Amino acid sequence: MADTRRIAVLAHEKFPGRAKTALGVMRYSDDETVAVIDRDLAGDRVADHTDTVPDAPIVGSFNEVPGDVDALLIGVAPIGGGFDESWRPDVVAALEAGVDVVAGLHYFLSEDEQFSKLAAEYGGELHDVRKPHPGIGVADGRSADIDAEVVLTVGTDCSVGKMTTTCELVDAAQEAGIDAGFVPTGQTGIMIAGWGNPVDRVVSDFTAGAVEEMLLERGDEHDVLFVEGQGSIVHPAYSAVTCGILHGSMADKLVLCHEAGKAAIHGYEETELPPIPEYVDLYESLAEPVHETAVVAGAINTSHIADDDVARTTVEEYGHELGGPASDPIRFGVGELVEELVGEHK
Amino acid sequence: MADTRRIAVLAHEKFPGRAKTALGVMRYSDDETVAVIDRDLAGDRVADHTDTVPDAPIVGSFNEVPGDVDALLIGVAPIGGGFDESWRPDVVAALEAGVDVVAGLHYFLSEDEQFSKLAAEYGGELHDVRKPHPGIGVADGRSADIDAEVVLTVGTDCSVGKMTTTCELVDAAQEAGIDAGFVPTGQTGIMIAGWGNPVDRVVSDFTAGAVEEMLLERGDEHDVLFVEGQGSIVHPAYSAVTCGILHGSMADKLVLCHEAGKAAIHGYEETELPPIPEYVDLYESLAEPVHETAVVAGAINTSHIADDDVARTTVEEYGHELGGPASDPIRFGVGELVEELVGEHK
Repeated sequence: MADTRRIAVLAHEKFPGRAKTALGVMRYSDDETVAVIDRDLAGDRVADHTDTVPDAPIVGSFNEVPGDVDALLIGVAPIGGGFDESWRPDVVAALEAGVDVVAGLHYFLSEDEQFSKLAAEYGGELHDVRKPHPGIGVADGRSADIDAEVVLTVGTDCSVGKMTTTCELVDAAQEAGIDAGFVPTGQTGIMIAGWGNPVDRVVSDFTAGAVEEMLLERGDEHDVLFVEGQGSIVHPAYSAVTCGILHGSMADKLVLCHEAGKAAIHGYEETELPPIPEYVDLYESLAEPVHETAVVAGAINTSHIADDDVARTTVEEYGHELGGPASDPIRFGVGELVEELVGEHK
Repeated sequence: MADTRRIAVLAHEKFPGRAKTALGVMRYSDDETVAVIDRDLAGDRVADHTDTVPDAPIVGSFNEVPGDVDALLIGVAPIGGGFDESWRPDVVAALEAGVDVVAGLHYFLSEDEQFSKLAAEYGGELHDVRKPHPGIGVADGRSADIDAEVVLTVGTDCSVGKMTTTCELVDAAQEAGIDAGFVPTGQTGIMIAGWGNPVDRVVSDFTAGAVEEMLLERGDEHDVLFVEGQGSIVHPAYSAVTCGILHGSMADKLVLCHEAGKAAIHGYEETELPPIPEYVDLYESLAEPVHETAVVAGAINTSHIADDDVARTTVEEYGHELGGPASDPIRFGVGELVEELVGEHK
């Protein structure tokens, strides 16, 4: 969705299964992936391991990347957001070649003495997409003033496909001739979009404000804005971010995202997921005093279900539970959801 | 509630009406206020202007404070949390006397070159209570594991008396022989308690974690912990913090705080307050998937109502609406609320 760049994607020892950021960027951004860097798979090709993203060679280090690239992108996000020192030679090699480095870690590359020195010396830029810009502040409650209709993805838990669903909806809406924009809120979304505020990394008082700022910036450029949600309103740790995005976006419509068969919050097994209709009530009643909204459609990840018919039944049952059309965006597409959500903008 | 210190409270041009922090600390902390510093009221006494806090002289500058003090406390919190340069001579004078300076501003005194140099030179300490310590992280969902019963104040809006109610409940519970502790979450509360995490100032992903850390630290030292709430679950800007505290505290009981006659969110007049029973439903249904809780009592600020009988009727109606005992903590005390909330711990 941003300008096309030629990028190398670092995913040492994690590609593809544990390199969510790499896969997201390769699948949805306008960047052209010249190579994936993973020392465990050097010599293979991306297509040997996954067919969900465009093919590319896999190499063992930045120096083996074929041809010129504009940026090295850190495509893995370890728990805690730390920088793995085994990546340093690749980052150094990229900077010494004058290449930009893009990262979404809690560890800011721009605050690393060696990296910042090399960037200054050779002219490459360090983009820490998780570093909020200093102008983000308290929300004014003005997101509803924008021209665009706002559709927000919300979830039953983290990692149930909110970003994927949002990107699929944007792409499908654009293909259907709708003037749709993408509003990212997390590091992978920001890398895909090439802009955006890391809402989970701002001062807690500014959570809604970080979303509002983006909507005010882009709200008059598109007919529809699809906002990437975060976490879940029942998540013991991350619900604050979810609530801030819900109120800060003043969304007109919600898409509830879920993973088939999930029974408890990942990593917080004592927190059982409430029934789907309860999620619908919770999101709608919480939003209502600030801006009335409704769960209009659902997305469900059925990748753990092998049988297509079973998956289809699961999707139908999910739609029935939430009271609207549903789909597995990757397996069955989002055509019907786009029609229901924003069909009037064609 | 912390160790007794002798303090001077800076409140230039704002005492008492616009010096909420000063009044809170003077009323509820164990610190002894030696003098208030307000150049507009120099020569007056505190008692000339308010009877809600202990009396003290008012002076025009730090150098006029009578006798020795342990700390200078910035008792005003301007919108935006900036440092007013007209306060600099007082802060400098305090530091040159080797006196600590305590502030809850977004502007950190410890990052001011002159202040940090003077502190190092003369041995005074700079306490920026709104600066989160670097160890705060993601919540583990473990607040319910502590021994203490947890009571959280929640609100219909900001500035409806959550901190005041919490402090009154702690004091009254302790007077009734209950082993009660105070868990602060905002700058004034932290100044009063002498410890605590500024929950509204941490990284948004860590909002619940910042509360949980405090509960795990103090949870086995008391029979009851009263947690100071922030904002409101329907606040267009601050609901994220409210939601994080609700889930992070895993409160057993809630006290709903309100201001009589308030119809809309302060500063966000398009956001009308929902009816009180709707607040009760919202807080309870949002909390329930993480930790079941109930709004058990209410506190209402009736200070704008002159007539005591009208105020009493207002309190009764409020209790009826929320379905439990209610009071105006300052006007009518919190005896009945303490009995209802934690009477079994006597």
